[in-house]
Amino acid sequence: VSTDDAADEFEIIRHYFAPLAANAPGAFNLQDDAATITPNPGFEIVITTDAIVAGVHFLEDESPRNIAAKLCGSNLSDLAAMGAKPIGFTLACAWPKGTSLDTIAAFAAGLREWVDGFDFPLLGGDTVSTPGPATFSLTAIGEVATGQCLRRNGARPGDKIFVTGTIGDGVLGLLAAQGKLNVIDADYCAFLEDRFRRPNPRVSAGQALVGQAHACLDISDGLVQDLSHMADASGVSIRLDAASVPLSPAAQVALNTDPQLLSTILSGGDDYELLISAAKMPTSLDVLMTEIGTVVAGPASVFTQGKDGEEIPLANTGYNHFK
Amino acid sequence: VSTDDAADEFEIIRHYFAPLAANAPGAFNLQDDAATITPNPGFEIVITTDAIVAGVHFLEDESPRNIAAKLCGSNLSDLAAMGAKPIGFTLACAWPKGTSLDTIAAFAAGLREWVDGFDFPLLGGDTVSTPGPATFSLTAIGEVATGQCLRRNGARPGDKIFVTGTIGDGVLGLLAAQGKLNVIDADYCAFLEDRFRRPNPRVSAGQALVGQAHACLDISDGLVQDLSHMADASGVSIRLDAASVPLSPAAQVALNTDPQLLSTILSGGDDYELLISAAKMPTSLDVLMTEIGTVVAGPASVFTQGKDGEEIPLANTGYNHFK
Repeated sequence: VSTDDAADEFEIIRHYFAPLAANAPGAFNLQDDAATITPNPGFEIVITTDAIVAGVHFLEDESPRNIAAKLCGSNLSDLAAMGAKPIGFTLACAWPKGTSLDTIAAFAAGLREWVDGFDFPLLGGDTVSTPGPATFSLTAIGEVATGQCLRRNGARPGDKIFVTGTIGDGVLGLLAAQGKLNVIDADYCAFLEDRFRRPNPRVSAGQALVGQAHACLDISDGLVQDLSHMADASGVSIRLDAASVPLSPAAQVALNTDPQLLSTILSGGDDYELLISAAKMPTSLDVLMTEIGTVVAGPASVFTQGKDGEEIPLANTGYNHFK
Repeated sequence: VSTDDAADEFEIIRHYFAPLAANAPGAFNLQDDAATITPNPGFEIVITTDAIVAGVHFLEDESPRNIAAKLCGSNLSDLAAMGAKPIGFTLACAWPKGTSLDTIAAFAAGLREWVDGFDFPLLGGDTVSTPGPATFSLTAIGEVATGQCLRRNGARPGDKIFVTGTIGDGVLGLLAAQGKLNVIDADYCAFLEDRFRRPNPRVSAGQALVGQAHACLDISDGLVQDLSHMADASGVSIRLDAASVPLSPAAQVALNTDPQLLSTILSGGDDYELLISAAKMPTSLDVLMTEIGTVVAGPASVFTQGKDGEEIPLANTGYNHFK
């Protein structure tokens, strides 16, 4: 059965999407023109929107479950970067004509993992058909204590730079998925592919950083480019110590085998880790946190140094999603 | 110059979109991962998302200015239907590869009319490229007094049904744009086309209906189908008096010339007028308001009657945007 034969869009919404709204009374079972939400007293709303297109932001043959993971994970990562607690999301889906109801069911089941896992109910949205590739846009809503949200413009000379988790797994996982990473064994490739396909947004760490971090953003464009966003917004110079960048065992083995991958690791996107500027190591986080650099006074810039303090030239400093 | 040659997505955001965020301090000049918004004390947030695809929801050769109008108008109409005051919006744009910067500039200028006209600043979003048709998703945010939002499930037996403005101009305008409406002259066609291409959301009327309407929704799927949404949600039967449905002079002339168009007018979509159930004619609205039917007890249903009380059979009771 394909969507072309389905009774109509209302049936699809009722059957597959309304159950994802069950824990949000203000979603009105997706029956009204809009949903209502109320931040807790003393909190303000945080809102972010990201779009993904088949063949551009995820592989064309990606599973519906992993598409849901990319959508929810990347947007929750943006909420985490602001220090926000998730409230819920709206979703616009443009499905290619002829999409099977099985695909939509699998996508909805994939969303369910995030709805339940992050207390992140669906609040509303739109389901349309397209003659083009599958295209999704998610708007994530969260809340943060009024005036306390983390921003990228607060890095100060004397701060240290930290990251959560490990860096480069996303871009190496993309290479692995494309069959372009032949330097490591299948188990490591599978680990990296999974990191690429299923972001692990640092939602509780983001909340714990409120009041501890001077600046924060999530690494989606690539470590060096996101460092330069922080440097530009804050008007500071950042020195990145490449040797300190935390790597997963799989990425470490890949790099040992092919040292040329260092530039890929430092500039590839889709890490969905948090990049933090703070006076000292933040505490009470539920995730690995590593110091990788320092903030100094000077024109907005990023200087990437190797073990002996020499500058490491980087050919490509980040994704450009528009191209 | 096309987007393929543009420096990058950040430049596009900075140059064309950031100025649309100038009046929203919490949008942080579109430089952060998310925006913050705070409802006024005693108000809650209303949120709605709609997507449109070139060749599906608007004509492929539509002007960027009119695409912006369709996007903003249809989403503001959803806020109006809930009785909400607009706060701002996020926007995801997927542009076909090779889109010119002139097109993006014209689109941003089109958005500007709505940002200024409805005090409706841009809060954030995403700009990506697609190998498919231009695709846009807008999330509109508004606020309404807590617990006071208008819903579609409150129609009660004894209520009367009202609509704002005139009905059928949207679908007749689509026919005119397609060269399929030959029964009326060019001036009337131009009027109807404009009504199709540029929705006029009833934003202030929606706010004035809070406390007066028992139920409200906006007419996007077609009058009869949207009446059936209200009847279903409210568990009532609605009698529509077809002869009372308010028509523009252009639509009236078209109908006089071709009486077959009645079914088209009653079931066509894209009116973006408000459909209201209330005990009596609402007051203090800035728009034409016409009584078109009554609510009676009975199984959820819509009965469309002609001048002599006879049932008017309708071949097609509304758009199905999914097909």
